[in-house]
Amino acid sequence: MKLGFVGLGKMGTGMARSLLRAGAEVLVWNRSPGPAEQLTGDGARWTKDIVELFQAEAVVTMLATDESIRETILDNHVLRQARPGLLHILCSTISVPFAEALEQIHRSHGIALVSAPVLGRPDIADAGDLNVIVAGEPAAVARATPVLEMFAKKLWPVGEKPASANVAKLAVNFTLACAIEAMAEAGALALRHGIPAPALMDIFTGTLFSSPAYKAYGPVVAAQTFEPAGFLLRHGLKDIRQVIEAGESGGAPMPFAGILRDNFIDAISHGDADKDWSALSRVAMRRAGL
Amino acid sequence: MKLGFVGLGKMGTGMARSLLRAGAEVLVWNRSPGPAEQLTGDGARWTKDIVELFQAEAVVTMLATDESIRETILDNHVLRQARPGLLHILCSTISVPFAEALEQIHRSHGIALVSAPVLGRPDIADAGDLNVIVAGEPAAVARATPVLEMFAKKLWPVGEKPASANVAKLAVNFTLACAIEAMAEAGALALRHGIPAPALMDIFTGTLFSSPAYKAYGPVVAAQTFEPAGFLLRHGLKDIRQVIEAGESGGAPMPFAGILRDNFIDAISHGDADKDWSALSRVAMRRAGL
Amino acid sequence: MKLGFVGLGKMGTGMARSLLRAGAEVLVWNRSPGPAEQLTGDGARWTKDIVELFQAEAVVTMLATDESIRETILDNHVLRQARPGLLHILCSTISVPFAEALEQIHRSHGIALVSAPVLGRPDIADAGDLNVIVAGEPAAVARATPVLEMFAKKLWPVGEKPASANVAKLAVNFTLACAIEAMAEAGALALRHGIPAPALMDIFTGTLFSSPAYKAYGPVVAAQTFEPAGFLLRHGLKDIRQVIEAGESGGAPMPFAGILRDNFIDAISHGDADKDWSALSRVAMRRAGL
Amino acid sequence: MKLGFVGLGKMGTGMARSLLRAGAEVLVWNRSPGPAEQLTGDGARWTKDIVELFQAEAVVTMLATDESIRETILDNHVLRQARPGLLHILCSTISVPFAEALEQIHRSHGIALVSAPVLGRPDIADAGDLNVIVAGEPAAVARATPVLEMFAKKLWPVGEKPASANVAKLAVNFTLACAIEAMAEAGALALRHGIPAPALMDIFTGTLFSSPAYKAYGPVVAAQTFEPAGFLLRHGLKDIRQVIEAGESGGAPMPFAGILRDNFIDAISHGDADKDWSALSRVAMRRAGL
Repeated sequence: MKLGFVGLGKMGTGMARSLLRAGAEVLVWNRSPGPAEQLTGDGARWTKDIVELFQAEAVVTMLATDESIRETILDNHVLRQARPGLLHILCSTISVPFAEALEQIHRSHGIALVSAPVLGRPDIADAGDLNVIVAGEPAAVARATPVLEMFAKKLWPVGEKPASANVAKLAVNFTLACAIEAMAEAGALALRHGIPAPALMDIFTGTLFSSPAYKAYGPVVAAQTFEPAGFLLRHGLKDIRQVIEAGESGGAPMPFAGILRDNFIDAISHGDADKDWSALSRVAMRRAGL
Repeated sequence: MKLGFVGLGKMGTGMARSLLRAGAEVLVWNRSPGPAEQLTGDGARWTKDIVELFQAEAVVTMLATDESIRETILDNHVLRQARPGLLHILCSTISVPFAEALEQIHRSHGIALVSAPVLGRPDIADAGDLNVIVAGEPAAVARATPVLEMFAKKLWPVGEKPASANVAKLAVNFTLACAIEAMAEAGALALRHGIPAPALMDIFTGTLFSSPAYKAYGPVVAAQTFEPAGFLLRHGLKDIRQVIEAGESGGAPMPFAGILRDNFIDAISHGDADKDWSALSRVAMRRAGL
Repeated sequence: MKLGFVGLGKMGTGMARSLLRAGAEVLVWNRSPGPAEQLTGDGARWTKDIVELFQAEAVVTMLATDESIRETILDNHVLRQARPGLLHILCSTISVPFAEALEQIHRSHGIALVSAPVLGRPDIADAGDLNVIVAGEPAAVARATPVLEMFAKKLWPVGEKPASANVAKLAVNFTLACAIEAMAEAGALALRHGIPAPALMDIFTGTLFSSPAYKAYGPVVAAQTFEPAGFLLRHGLKDIRQVIEAGESGGAPMPFAGILRDNFIDAISHGDADKDWSALSRVAMRRAGL
Repeated sequence: MKLGFVGLGKMGTGMARSLLRAGAEVLVWNRSPGPAEQLTGDGARWTKDIVELFQAEAVVTMLATDESIRETILDNHVLRQARPGLLHILCSTISVPFAEALEQIHRSHGIALVSAPVLGRPDIADAGDLNVIVAGEPAAVARATPVLEMFAKKLWPVGEKPASANVAKLAVNFTLACAIEAMAEAGALALRHGIPAPALMDIFTGTLFSSPAYKAYGPVVAAQTFEPAGFLLRHGLKDIRQVIEAGESGGAPMPFAGILRDNFIDAISHGDADKDWSALSRVAMRRAGL
């Protein structure tokens, strides 16, 4: 299968390598040439003309934000020059209104759109073991499935509107941020009553909360060390802003999201914008005088 | 070992059976005689005089609330008539100020107190597989350990002040309620954007949140059925009130707990006081017009 | 008219002086004798035996807290020794459950109870210009009215259950704390956008919010100086705790009260417990990095 | 003085009439011709070419939203065709980022910009008694002052950046919404404890809160009637969204604003989008089961 791949950050590089390893012919493009050139060692072909990628059977894009998609694809009128009938698999975590706008634009150009945001870190992308949330018209999802399975452990379908996958991805990130905040408040409570935070986190991860989310962040909340950053705190605020925006457009009050937003802003006003987003947990500690 | 056991609710009965099975001689007392009489079939001895239990080496109490402990033990001056040097293992989930008061009272009577609230359901108590949070003076905890191990899978020590175990237990219940609220807000968001709630809960429990807490409550949040009640919603409010009270006495603001309290009150004002506490999740749905 | 008066703090002294000036015979009692002795210069009679006061037609009590009423009146069994048919006018700001308990106790002793918490400062008490919230059985309120009018500018009746007056008083204090918090958040927003806080407060008090609450606290929020304390911040927390407690018993979620409680706790954990309660406003500033 | 005036809604018409009454020559433009034609009876001149207005000494615009300014003025490139040195007095309540963008655009066209959002109702605009918040470069504000004084009771300067006036206006609307929410929560508390809401509102407006904000909305909160709408609830949500946005860009957490946003969304999900924004108060009542 001939595929295009746009966006060779750490995650994208891992995903592209999984595609190559699964036997796909992959033509890659990246804003800065370094990562693209490097991937040729794994068998990828490389072009500086992004339009060339959009002549393939399917193109996978893994760009970071609404803005980077806008600049790379929309502002350059790439879709207008795409092969009719192309399948676009959009793996970014983007805002819901932007996903809805992209659905309209793709339809008007006769391009099938599948939104497929991923859960997992770069090493998991490289191992082809990602969890992938998928939404789009059934025929498009059927076409995307063999591609996605090259880097996915499992696909999680959530409906026929592409934006639904982005709602679900935001819901996951929201629930993760809630877990961090809950551990932080519980940790501040425990510390103020003389209980070491690690002892409490051990109970969490050893009993009711023995899942990746708590096992990854419980020790971080206990240790209060937020560097190096896996996911920037200011990007965490962006995600929560998009959660709130999606809540408003859907008609859902989200009081926990409001608390999270305020605490992210508090963290940024105390210098933690470029720390790992788990520095959210420092706010509960600071407010408790710890 | 000769033990007393007070409080044969569903949990207490399972714990007492585990003690018997492990070879302890157990003298039981219960407010209503039925469960005590029944336990004699498992080898327990039964008395109607609670003071008799307090002549044993150790007595385990599994009463439901601050009030029931006050009525059963304090108001009857049972501690004054206890064997000097007795070890009291208190397994209830009680408030922090009451746990602190009990510490004083036990010391004044020369009775060793270990607070050991348990995590788990009746069948797990019966299987001897509970997780038990433990706090108390080291010598007392050392004496309590062989008793606790008869019904525990694992002990989780959190310090030398008995009340610390109750702080930690409240922190666990708080974190669990936060997980339910997070799933409810995420579920309302998803539903309002056309995503079936079960699809979202499957993502949660299949990826980052694959732990007992989410696996138990995710399907409940999706199905919105809250009967029969495993844990009453009004008792959930009581726990959160005690969390907030402990936060205030310790100096820790707990904004998530404030949201939970308001939502529990909202639920009670809409008739759900005696439903399962996961009916908390109905509030986010109702507020979103679902 | 022969009256007893208990509780000669700053407010109580002003109220007692207004009663004397209006021609009442007033027998006073105070825990520490100084203020009582001093009031004899204004024509009061003074006794060290509080029971003596409870033989009058009516007794006015102006004690600070639930606890001081419990210690002074309940623990000493004063009501049991009171003149049958006595009218007790209770001017303290107390909690709702305690007000409800007092109603029961007074009824059982055949003493009429009117709850009449006051709004105003000591100088206003002395001038006889207080606003007084009043609740009780109509006959009792009718008997209390001529007494209250001696120190009141206006009476504000709110119902037949004495506790209703305390609910209303708590509602006023809650609304006042909300005004302070709103000004603080608005002030932090303004400052972070380069607008001097006094300019914003001038707009508030010169336009839509030209009332005593904003005129008193707007300049304080702008200046961020909280000493000397008119009303202690930790007492502000107590009031909000009682608001939340009354909300819970009544079935009313109060999200603003939850925010206030957390911010008062934050303030206390940063050393402001004994500042004026308007130091609440420092929290919004600090969280904004100001 | 020759002035242009754009935007003849109810407020704009009153303001334009005040300008005419004060002796200004006013050339008016409005999207729908009706109100413009009508104003010729008061001495205004009317044109269908908006560019003509921008040749005057100063032009006052009173358009409703960011969008209407964008469509009417920016999309039509009106500023490019304006008289060099023109003074633009912008009286709308707009978002802070849009005000900041407008400052840039005006500077690039050599047009002086003063932001001057107004407080008051149409009848007050007509009487020339508005409160006007003003911000801009000192020379521009000096030029705007005689114009503004034609419809203002008082000017409230807040700084040299035009957007500051919009921050201050948002801060006023936020504080007003907070007052409504506080009265609603207090009212629900009172009702659940048997106190009629009007009795409580009378205490508020008769004592500490005797200002226009509380006098206007206290009776509405008590009566719970929200039609006809003076200010649409969905516009209230828009304002609070802009407050939160300004808080985030400035680095100020605003927890009360988060509560307001959730409650506005709750109200909209229960059918109150086009009621008066004081229908916000229905949320606290509904959540308390009232």
